[in-house]
Amino acid sequence: MCRDIGDDPFKAYQTELVAAGLLIPLGVPGLYGRSGRFERIIAQFEAHVARTVAPFQPEVIRFPPLFPRSNYEKIDHIKNFPDLLGSVHTFTGKDAEHQELLRIFSENGDWSRNLSPTASMLVPAACYPLYPTARGTLPEGGRLVDLSSYVFRHEPSEDPARMQMFRMRELVRLGTPEEALGHRNEWLERGKRIFESLGLPVEAVVANDPFFGRGGKVMKVAQREQVLKYELVIPICSTEKPTAIFSSNYHLDHFGSLFGINTADDQVAHSACIGFGLERITLALLKTHGFDVARWPANVRDILELN
Amino acid sequence: MCRDIGDDPFKAYQTELVAAGLLIPLGVPGLYGRSGRFERIIAQFEAHVARTVAPFQPEVIRFPPLFPRSNYEKIDHIKNFPDLLGSVHTFTGKDAEHQELLRIFSENGDWSRNLSPTASMLVPAACYPLYPTARGTLPEGGRLVDLSSYVFRHEPSEDPARMQMFRMRELVRLGTPEEALGHRNEWLERGKRIFESLGLPVEAVVANDPFFGRGGKVMKVAQREQVLKYELVIPICSTEKPTAIFSSNYHLDHFGSLFGINTADDQVAHSACIGFGLERITLALLKTHGFDVARWPANVRDILELN
Repeated sequence: MCRDIGDDPFKAYQTELVAAGLLIPLGVPGLYGRSGRFERIIAQFEAHVARTVAPFQPEVIRFPPLFPRSNYEKIDHIKNFPDLLGSVHTFTGKDAEHQELLRIFSENGDWSRNLSPTASMLVPAACYPLYPTARGTLPEGGRLVDLSSYVFRHEPSEDPARMQMFRMRELVRLGTPEEALGHRNEWLERGKRIFESLGLPVEAVVANDPFFGRGGKVMKVAQREQVLKYELVIPICSTEKPTAIFSSNYHLDHFGSLFGINTADDQVAHSACIGFGLERITLALLKTHGFDVARWPANVRDILELN
Repeated sequence: MCRDIGDDPFKAYQTELVAAGLLIPLGVPGLYGRSGRFERIIAQFEAHVARTVAPFQPEVIRFPPLFPRSNYEKIDHIKNFPDLLGSVHTFTGKDAEHQELLRIFSENGDWSRNLSPTASMLVPAACYPLYPTARGTLPEGGRLVDLSSYVFRHEPSEDPARMQMFRMRELVRLGTPEEALGHRNEWLERGKRIFESLGLPVEAVVANDPFFGRGGKVMKVAQREQVLKYELVIPICSTEKPTAIFSSNYHLDHFGSLFGINTADDQVAHSACIGFGLERITLALLKTHGFDVARWPANVRDILELN
């Protein structure tokens, strides 16, 4: 498959995926169409996750990949990850302003300067839209919410595992510190077992988010020292730079404080989320077992009901 | 359900859907979370469409809800629907520019002015990303492509059937004029039968797209005179203003010319698409049969495999 030769094994794997018709490049780095074969793997993996989660009776909620700018402005993303954000702008003028917009456009000018920000931002993670809707007092025992969404991160790359728009399946726990931390730890183990059962030998590593700039270095260290984030990583294109296909995050009372979420006994709620990176998991399966699903190991095909 | 009394039956139905926990308002008009019950109806309807389409052996492709700005700039959308567009902007500066961004943000200024346009736009229709990827010569008999995607239209509204971000299931035909027009007409009939079988008495009407401004009036008349667009409409909140839940569009050689798509015998390809508005169909089903799926007519439950 992905030959670990030459300068760029990431670009090489991208080329193979495109040649095999699994991904369709759109002309912007990190934007791809997905073939039916690729989508089937994602759908079957999500169905497997749903079966695994079912005994815990999560609430299922699906948010679109936009959320309110007013909530975006509360979550420190502009401070920590400004280079990744996606702000949605549109045209709000009348006929005269439209003529001006079209004049700039026809002269190959920057017509985007004549747009205005909308009330929406692209979501950087599937769980962000949830927290503001959870304001108030949680039921006894807290909440477990099953989410899945396209998310946006502006990081143009030729690495097929670093898409600008990709899907994240999340399980979010809102409750006491023990409930949130327990969720994070238990699902890190369950996630590991899911991947191992699928022939993906992942490794758990303490991780940090890609905080921006000089100030971000301190944040990265603090996040690691508090051991707030684990990732499950596996080589896709490079053994030196394995790819995270799953992450588990303990937020402490960050979202509970920001959005006024309290436990049944009136403490500020803590939260944790675990996330499956659906495209990356599919790429790891294709890399490990090959592009021909019919020739994948029988037990993997059984688990994913791919027969 | 939706009481056709008072000034705003649309707002009244929105309130009922929210009270029933089917939609979760996010604080921006037209942005909602969907409950598991709502999503189940969408999933089962999509599965029914997939079964109906299967005999025609479509290619399945899934695009993310972003597509290249360079392609957006080719399709006349900025001329015809500027008020609906969604342009994605991000921050591209270094530490110094970031400090300035944060200063404006902390002073409640318009920080969006300090962003730059990315190479991506939100998709206004599920099929737009397809055409540029179809450049070249089509196979004999053309192509039939099955698409489904979230799409964005900036039209903030309290009408729950007018969301800013919603899903569209499309079937696109690329081929000769006869193949494209035949697709449009046959699927208009098939769509009508699907809805009637589900207890939704739709009406087919010649329609036009919401072309912008003074110049748009001429475009609307031309589109209607050429009978390029049909919609299937049904009352959801208002009998006077029924809602389109399906549309079928014949594009002539618009996309074939723009993106260099040719038929096997080297003519410019024509295209047509039909689209199911998945949230609107779900809202129509809930309005017609009630919020309790267990009490829907047995034949509707059978067809959608909701038992």
